[in-house]
Amino acid sequence: MDLNKYIAIRENWPKEGISFKDITPLTQDPAAFKEAVERMAEPFKGLGITKVLCADARGFIFGGPVALILGAGMSIARKPNKLPYVAYSESYDLEYGSNTLEVAPGAVIRGDKVLVVDDLLATGGSAIALTKLAERAGGEVVGYSVLVELTGLKARNKLKAPTHSLIQYEF
Amino acid sequence: MDLNKYIAIRENWPKEGISFKDITPLTQDPAAFKEAVERMAEPFKGLGITKVLCADARGFIFGGPVALILGAGMSIARKPNKLPYVAYSESYDLEYGSNTLEVAPGAVIRGDKVLVVDDLLATGGSAIALTKLAERAGGEVVGYSVLVELTGLKARNKLKAPTHSLIQYEF
Repeated sequence: MDLNKYIAIRENWPKEGISFKDITPLTQDPAAFKEAVERMAEPFKGLGITKVLCADARGFIFGGPVALILGAGMSIARKPNKLPYVAYSESYDLEYGSNTLEVAPGAVIRGDKVLVVDDLLATGGSAIALTKLAERAGGEVVGYSVLVELTGLKARNKLKAPTHSLIQYEF
Repeated sequence: MDLNKYIAIRENWPKEGISFKDITPLTQDPAAFKEAVERMAEPFKGLGITKVLCADARGFIFGGPVALILGAGMSIARKPNKLPYVAYSESYDLEYGSNTLEVAPGAVIRGDKVLVVDDLLATGGSAIALTKLAERAGGEVVGYSVLVELTGLKARNKLKAPTHSLIQYEF
């Protein structure tokens, strides 16, 4: 199945110069959604992944199914003021704007093998923040699995573990 | 497995009088997360569910896995200014504060059989908003599946289709 055709592009949204990749046509299609999450999990089977770590909010869409397929826990990194108890917090720059992510106690524990899952790898800001959150808690990030990668931003070169993406755009 | 023990309670958070149900210990535990999503999907197997509709952001945690198990599409209802194209919008009151949810074109289409999935059924505000969004698009809501139900608020009496919850608190 060609998953590319399930991504809608909106140019200059949410601001000038951004080519927004809309994933809703993909998630809304039962076969495309199933194939996407299975292919996102596939390369990481048998590696002993104990936690999938994903970012508020679109990361949750793929993090849950991938965690289920891998038999891992699903650990959520949330925007500020959403978690009643915060273990660690990291701020980072977005492709547009900035963001802070927080994890609860136990989201990652010493010895966890962590797979970072997100909808999009752009500048790598959120992936690096998730990596720092995992490492501060004593976990090891063993890979990154994303639906869409903007290859022209070369974020995978900044990441310390293998990156797997299903759909690539330059920008 | 007793899923109740994976919920942490924080009293008077995020404001006085609210007993916040923290689901992170459950999602972070591989076995508890797997059992929760399988039990959330179970009663709705064989009903021809075509779309799981879930609300930004905690609804996504359970909506994705339940959609995968049921072979349905995962349709997300987002907070304002997150979707590049908006088909329908609904505002509602929360247990604390208020919210607006928006769906993309195709999130629900005429004839869809929709299962509404959320982490929590409290006053029913978001469940009713999701119902209106589904019905305005020509879909039929055939059930509600939530992890936690606050039974004292009697929200299930306001819903038109069967409600299934795994964990119950009075408030």
